Amino acid sequence: MGQKISFASDYTKGAHPKILEALADNNLNQMPGYGTDEICERAKAKIRKACGCPGAEVFFLMGGTQTNQTVIDMLLKPYEGVIAAGTGHIAVHEAGAVEFSGHKVLTLHPAGAETDTERYGSEIGKINAEELKAYVEAFYSDDSYEHMVFPGAVYISHPTEYGTLYTKKELTDISKVCGEKGIPLFLDGARLGYGLMSKRTDVTLGDIAELVDVFYIGGTKVGALFGEAVVFPKGLPTKHPVPVIKQHGALLAKGFLLGLQFDELFTDGLYFDISRNAIDMAELMKEKLKDKGYKFLLDSPTNQQFVIIDKEKLKEIEPHVGYSYWQKFSPTQTVIRLATDWATTVEDIDKLMQYM
Amino acid sequence: MGQKISFASDYTKGAHPKILEALADNNLNQMPGYGTDEICERAKAKIRKACGCPGAEVFFLMGGTQTNQTVIDMLLKPYEGVIAAGTGHIAVHEAGAVEFSGHKVLTLHPAGAETDTERYGSEIGKINAEELKAYVEAFYSDDSYEHMVFPGAVYISHPTEYGTLYTKKELTDISKVCGEKGIPLFLDGARLGYGLMSKRTDVTLGDIAELVDVFYIGGTKVGALFGEAVVFPKGLPTKHPVPVIKQHGALLAKGFLLGLQFDELFTDGLYFDISRNAIDMAELMKEKLKDKGYKFLLDSPTNQQFVIIDKEKLKEIEPHVGYSYWQKFSPTQTVIRLATDWATTVEDIDKLMQYM
Amino acid sequence: MGQKISFASDYTKGAHPKILEALADNNLNQMPGYGTDEICERAKAKIRKACGCPGAEVFFLMGGTQTNQTVIDMLLKPYEGVIAAGTGHIAVHEAGAVEFSGHKVLTLHPAGAETDTERYGSEIGKINAEELKAYVEAFYSDDSYEHMVFPGAVYISHPTEYGTLYTKKELTDISKVCGEKGIPLFLDGARLGYGLMSKRTDVTLGDIAELVDVFYIGGTKVGALFGEAVVFPKGLPTKHPVPVIKQHGALLAKGFLLGLQFDELFTDGLYFDISRNAIDMAELMKEKLKDKGYKFLLDSPTNQQFVIIDKEKLKEIEPHVGYSYWQKFSPTQTVIRLATDWATTVEDIDKLMQYM
Amino acid sequence: MGQKISFASDYTKGAHPKILEALADNNLNQMPGYGTDEICERAKAKIRKACGCPGAEVFFLMGGTQTNQTVIDMLLKPYEGVIAAGTGHIAVHEAGAVEFSGHKVLTLHPAGAETDTERYGSEIGKINAEELKAYVEAFYSDDSYEHMVFPGAVYISHPTEYGTLYTKKELTDISKVCGEKGIPLFLDGARLGYGLMSKRTDVTLGDIAELVDVFYIGGTKVGALFGEAVVFPKGLPTKHPVPVIKQHGALLAKGFLLGLQFDELFTDGLYFDISRNAIDMAELMKEKLKDKGYKFLLDSPTNQQFVIIDKEKLKEIEPHVGYSYWQKFSPTQTVIRLATDWATTVEDIDKLMQYM
Repeated sequence: MGQKISFASDYTKGAHPKILEALADNNLNQMPGYGTDEICERAKAKIRKACGCPGAEVFFLMGGTQTNQTVIDMLLKPYEGVIAAGTGHIAVHEAGAVEFSGHKVLTLHPAGAETDTERYGSEIGKINAEELKAYVEAFYSDDSYEHMVFPGAVYISHPTEYGTLYTKKELTDISKVCGEKGIPLFLDGARLGYGLMSKRTDVTLGDIAELVDVFYIGGTKVGALFGEAVVFPKGLPTKHPVPVIKQHGALLAKGFLLGLQFDELFTDGLYFDISRNAIDMAELMKEKLKDKGYKFLLDSPTNQQFVIIDKEKLKEIEPHVGYSYWQKFSPTQTVIRLATDWATTVEDIDKLMQYM
Repeated sequence: MGQKISFASDYTKGAHPKILEALADNNLNQMPGYGTDEICERAKAKIRKACGCPGAEVFFLMGGTQTNQTVIDMLLKPYEGVIAAGTGHIAVHEAGAVEFSGHKVLTLHPAGAETDTERYGSEIGKINAEELKAYVEAFYSDDSYEHMVFPGAVYISHPTEYGTLYTKKELTDISKVCGEKGIPLFLDGARLGYGLMSKRTDVTLGDIAELVDVFYIGGTKVGALFGEAVVFPKGLPTKHPVPVIKQHGALLAKGFLLGLQFDELFTDGLYFDISRNAIDMAELMKEKLKDKGYKFLLDSPTNQQFVIIDKEKLKEIEPHVGYSYWQKFSPTQTVIRLATDWATTVEDIDKLMQYM
Repeated sequence: MGQKISFASDYTKGAHPKILEALADNNLNQMPGYGTDEICERAKAKIRKACGCPGAEVFFLMGGTQTNQTVIDMLLKPYEGVIAAGTGHIAVHEAGAVEFSGHKVLTLHPAGAETDTERYGSEIGKINAEELKAYVEAFYSDDSYEHMVFPGAVYISHPTEYGTLYTKKELTDISKVCGEKGIPLFLDGARLGYGLMSKRTDVTLGDIAELVDVFYIGGTKVGALFGEAVVFPKGLPTKHPVPVIKQHGALLAKGFLLGLQFDELFTDGLYFDISRNAIDMAELMKEKLKDKGYKFLLDSPTNQQFVIIDKEKLKEIEPHVGYSYWQKFSPTQTVIRLATDWATTVEDIDKLMQYM
Repeated sequence: MGQKISFASDYTKGAHPKILEALADNNLNQMPGYGTDEICERAKAKIRKACGCPGAEVFFLMGGTQTNQTVIDMLLKPYEGVIAAGTGHIAVHEAGAVEFSGHKVLTLHPAGAETDTERYGSEIGKINAEELKAYVEAFYSDDSYEHMVFPGAVYISHPTEYGTLYTKKELTDISKVCGEKGIPLFLDGARLGYGLMSKRTDVTLGDIAELVDVFYIGGTKVGALFGEAVVFPKGLPTKHPVPVIKQHGALLAKGFLLGLQFDELFTDGLYFDISRNAIDMAELMKEKLKDKGYKFLLDSPTNQQFVIIDKEKLKEIEPHVGYSYWQKFSPTQTVIRLATDWATTVEDIDKLMQYM
């Protein structure tokens, strides 16, 4: 690793120092197991408050794929599938974890990165209310719908895998369709902080709590060592979440570790402050890259930026800069992803710019 | 919690200070994701060395049920089940996680705590080579065995859920039966350190690596914040473990967190030293309890002790001492579990004895 | 096969001639697919009438394991298992079909044929209300029940795999426990006709419809080519049974074939008449075997008889008589199963007796 | 039903009279269970001969979805999915049976009936070697392929769900790609006879046996009461097919019923003769419809014809003619499917034409 600086992802570092402190301070305070402790309760209370949702059910899981798999399994009946964008994480990059649990991912439009960005532009990664409505109505108007997979839940990510965001209007429209059709809406918030703190969003945490049936507040990519806070604003779809979580191998013995982290993140607005840092650094990086003449695959309003770069140049920066290969762009150009995070500094950006 | 001292389990505390230090020291050192980093490699090398097994495949998972489920799923063909003791953790306390993955747990003898301890005494929690052999041979001599669940793996825990241990002879005999029958042997080592450091064991880490096909070295209950190191001494049963792990929601994005912890645990024998502490403290506790006239459900050689206590007395200690209810013993007596761990001190034992 | 006569099972022959006739008569009458035809409706109406249950939901499946798997999957939540006797077909002889669907079979007492018959005698194959009640109450009184598999349904077979029968009192008691605990009761009636027509039963079809939540009327072993009629006397546990059935590969394109068969079986009491024949022949066979000095493993009141036979004698009859090996009895004796069926004749019994 | 004539599907009738005769003739000949009888052996031998494949493994299942689900489950490792056309039966009309078994259906191009036919014309329903090759190569060249679903088998139907056929060249090319990539090729032959007897095919049964790894010869839609013959020309992918079949609820107790039917179908070329009838009748129907000015959605060379019809006209024929609704065509026109079968007569076509 050495001196190489990495913008490859937002999960290359440990945790915010306050979280490490909290872990150290509570290290030998004995806690009951499986998240039944008082620190988890305290963290849940803070999350409910931040969501403006005193009746919400909250629990903590360890990672994104695990959370998607477990939540979707809670929402669906055995013969139901989950609707997602073709680019959705559950549709592409979770090794079939949803299918492993017996459910089909019903994609509203196909994935295929190269063409998608052309076709969908800044809407890439998103679904919209009209196509969702059309899909559900076409399903039930099909004579043989009982031989098909029922649409039992809708999955959206915010920010999406391409860093894009729903507007409040778009989210409201999707929520309305879901409500009319009786289909629960699940929002994957693995990078939720970066969405909420974007300069170009009108969506608040409270809006999300109001508009969706379940969402999660990502910790792994936003300042925690690991962990995701699942929030059911209107209550749980199952009477017994514990055995479902356990069956998925997702019940952490030392659940208090998750409580401790989210307790810190939701004290004095820490989650929002560190999320804002990633956005500020992304904007700075974007500006500087533009100044150098770089173009972008799309205009991402969050911490992931998709930069078009000459293959020659890419070879040149390779020894110095960590990045994620994203897709081909042209015979001589490639798209790479550069992600800022809760800990990125102006110095990091400056260092990056030395090589770009 | 306050001043109450707990012996309820070995997962009530955080991590050994050296682990917290390592996390802090490496906090902003950027790492690649999913355990592909150099710290994981370093930890794996140390584990291979400790096992005397340079060719072993090692990977890290997050918790016990997750590990059992994932490893068993790797070992079995779809029509195979896993043999276990009726008291085995996978048979009783994992909410059917193995069945959730489509496989039956084939129990060699029934669970039923009250009667088991009478029937099996200090052999409780264990299987033996003879009954295993008889089971497999009976299976294949049944005319209709193709209509039954094939025995595709053998699961044992060491220490068992009752704190008991296999002798080297017993383990060798089971291993031999498994080898003859072509059935892989899996050892659940959630508390492995406490087994290896028992005063009354002749089984070493090297013996285990030699005798089983896969085992794990438990971190969650032995000094780590969380994490289990899965070791396949003779290689992996699947060409692609990553998608299998991912499908189970078990692939930690920041895999380096697991590498960091096991790197510490396997530096300068830390894992063994802190395991020995739990044993020393358990022996001290046992001695002091015996001096006070307490009797035990069975003679456990590890960190879990099963104490017979008057119901009246139990009420009395309740506000001061955390314990796990285990089972009924008589109309007036109860069995409780008291567990020491890597961090238990002589002062803790003294404090406990004030109330007992 | 040639001249050899077989009592190996009750599924060695085709179908009652009236069923073949009905198939031939309707062969080119075009029907809609998947059981949506009028003959299925007619058959269902006759079954409802025979059960005295005008509001019952009825559907047709193809075979026993398929029916057990599909019905159990309809009854259970993902984290629930099904309670059964250790000797239950789902626990032993269905290749783990229930586990394949993700659910554990919770056995009330262990299987182990040799010892079971000693221990349980004529109660073999059955569960009883007391042990069921104790099991469920023990479950919910366990502190860690949310880490265990919830009892979500009860499976019984009538007749059992050993030919034994529940009394009306026993069935009522089990039904009462199930009702009190909110756990649906499922009766596997693969050989239901032979149970209902036993000389020693006080249980009627109407009783079953009243006492259980779902049962099936076996056709495969009782005069049909194949097919089982599933009856939910109090309504379905799922709004959409079709996709569940389809997911299990259990939706027959030409569903009318099942309707045609059950329509015949439930016209003019055919199902009962041919069932009675099997019982009459079993009683005759038993009497003649007793006259020859044969002893039985247990006193079965239905069409399956478990005969103790010298190994020497067994070799002798082997070329002439088809039988099912059941279990060892003593160093020199074996237990074989001899089953009569809807088509067994007095001549068949006479022929058998020539060799026995 | 009455006098209404139906072209709604090819599974509206019973079986070819020779099959009914065979069932009647063998009705009381006792057979061992689960397809272990000599008639199944005889049928298998005839199928092997017809395929020119003496070493083929053959077994019989009951229906199409069941067969697709069971075969695909045999082919795939847990982390693998099956590639199919977006219009593939497994992708659209099997209620998620493949996903229910834990596997993803990887669609090469999206379904969406209205637009597909425009986009793909007579290629609708098919995949091609180039796109398959591109898909597999793109998969393995993706950095994160271990986080995605591995392509573990290829599913094609012949005829497809739209009645279209692969040419020998196309099949050879797909087979070649599969061979190079080590991915087994599975051909769904639910309507295989109608493909083989098309006037416009150069593909023989022997070609298929040579080019694919597993296929099935559909009986349900081609003259049998029910049943599909699964053929593995190069041997089985699993040592123990029986428990896999049993786990899927797909092991028929009276397996001889399937053997009897396929024995008839493969005696004196019956399967081919009756398949040819369906083709002849389809061609006749098509000609007569064209004479009346009807247009078709696509030029289907098999027994399923997709006719464009005015909505007014459709209402008019409704009381007299059974058809399958297929899709919208224009504001005033609809596409319906009319299927001939093994038993369709010239009189049936004439009767149809009275109303069209």
